[in-house]
Amino acid sequence: MTPYSGLAGSGSPAGWLAVAGLGPGGAQWVTPEVSQALADATDIVGYRSYVARVEPRPGLVLHASDNGDELERAAHALRLAEHGRRVVVVSSGDPGVFAMAAAVFEALEQGPLAWRALDLRVLPGVSAMLAAAAQVGAPLGHDFCAINLSDNLKPWDLLEHRLRLALQGDFVIALYNPRSQARPHGFARALELLRGTCGEAEAARRPLVFARCVCTPRQHLRVVTLSQARPEMADMRTLVIVGSSQSRLIARDGVPWVYAPRSAPRAGR
Amino acid sequence: MTPYSGLAGSGSPAGWLAVAGLGPGGAQWVTPEVSQALADATDIVGYRSYVARVEPRPGLVLHASDNGDELERAAHALRLAEHGRRVVVVSSGDPGVFAMAAAVFEALEQGPLAWRALDLRVLPGVSAMLAAAAQVGAPLGHDFCAINLSDNLKPWDLLEHRLRLALQGDFVIALYNPRSQARPHGFARALELLRGTCGEAEAARRPLVFARCVCTPRQHLRVVTLSQARPEMADMRTLVIVGSSQSRLIARDGVPWVYAPRSAPRAGR
Repeated sequence: MTPYSGLAGSGSPAGWLAVAGLGPGGAQWVTPEVSQALADATDIVGYRSYVARVEPRPGLVLHASDNGDELERAAHALRLAEHGRRVVVVSSGDPGVFAMAAAVFEALEQGPLAWRALDLRVLPGVSAMLAAAAQVGAPLGHDFCAINLSDNLKPWDLLEHRLRLALQGDFVIALYNPRSQARPHGFARALELLRGTCGEAEAARRPLVFARCVCTPRQHLRVVTLSQARPEMADMRTLVIVGSSQSRLIARDGVPWVYAPRSAPRAGR
Repeated sequence: MTPYSGLAGSGSPAGWLAVAGLGPGGAQWVTPEVSQALADATDIVGYRSYVARVEPRPGLVLHASDNGDELERAAHALRLAEHGRRVVVVSSGDPGVFAMAAAVFEALEQGPLAWRALDLRVLPGVSAMLAAAAQVGAPLGHDFCAINLSDNLKPWDLLEHRLRLALQGDFVIALYNPRSQARPHGFARALELLRGTCGEAEAARRPLVFARCVCTPRQHLRVVTLSQARPEMADMRTLVIVGSSQSRLIARDGVPWVYAPRSAPRAGR
């Protein structure tokens, strides 16, 4: 990326757009690539609480928006870059996992053809699921699925379909956005589905990880069995990991380790 | 993590073990947390080509091993930490995704109880799948699965079972370790299964991403349709992403952008 040419706002070809992942929390999980982009930027665009994680400095314009129209936020960022600004769209975790990158490409596809010639990059980050997994061991050490439990943009029946198939395949399952004030009941239904499909005996042993505000000062980790899991254990800042039939616990002081062994027995056990 | 106390080899309680992800390639994707652990370490343990990514310095012992017995490598690292060494086990990408963290916890569970009191941490990294996705856009922007295509530690029929279920659920699929000299035929069979399940018309439009040596000077990206995909396009350094029925391409100079829209239609369309 070229350093800022001083022609901001003039339609300078030096404009660019980086869609960056800030990682799960503190500065020790921000990649040097992302730090550099933030240092070179003229504009930061994103959801309020993610923009708040960027150090303000003179000349840096912060465009903090409420959670809402991600497509319009993406188009705004593309327009800024088109006009010569050096723009970083910030997401928590990784921008490509249930975050802003998909919205930027949706906006790009729907927008003017000129946007396709923009200097556009996606800068990966440590996703919430990888950070949460690391805090409790290696629960994603075997084949796994990542499912966004929000049904804002997809029908609930598709979510249930995917949960059933994921269980059938004995995948470990990472659940993003399990529960919010606007969607208080979905996660309860998901837990019922998981328990109903697994059966009582299996639910009494299968581990679930609740990782709230992972890698922040408010981090709270909890490992319970599927039987013990309650909807209230999750909120919109919680990443839930549902173990497979092979997932194992290692007791220790505090939260136990959870891991998925690398090997697996035959299908259909 | 405490700084090195100078009591290495004496069974000092200052010993620790960090299982760290070096990210996909260059230094710009190594998190500050991992850099700090490498700076504080007395010993680096790992597969030869990952250990080679750690800058040597006086007093730092590099334990490079051939690809092989990961469990013994993990036990070796645990023993070093038990004897007061400050040990970093290195993996490429994220240590928790088809890498060393699961092996360390397997060794921990099988080993002496004293190991459970060790200062043990997993330091997450940018996984190959997130890095590969970022290079081509946002192909993992919707629900996805990650499947290790190696059948060294699991039966091939389980792999096929999971691939079929993943297609049925219309997940995007990230395939790790698609093909190696020791397993030249599995990926060809996987492609046949994918084509047979999708049908000819769908295979002619569904995008596949081949990302080889991602984020290294030898990076090679290719986006083809499922119909065009050939087994030779992948090797052990390739991450393959199989699009869903919803995945979209945006043409541009060079490799097209690929993304998964955030929204999805009803199941069973």
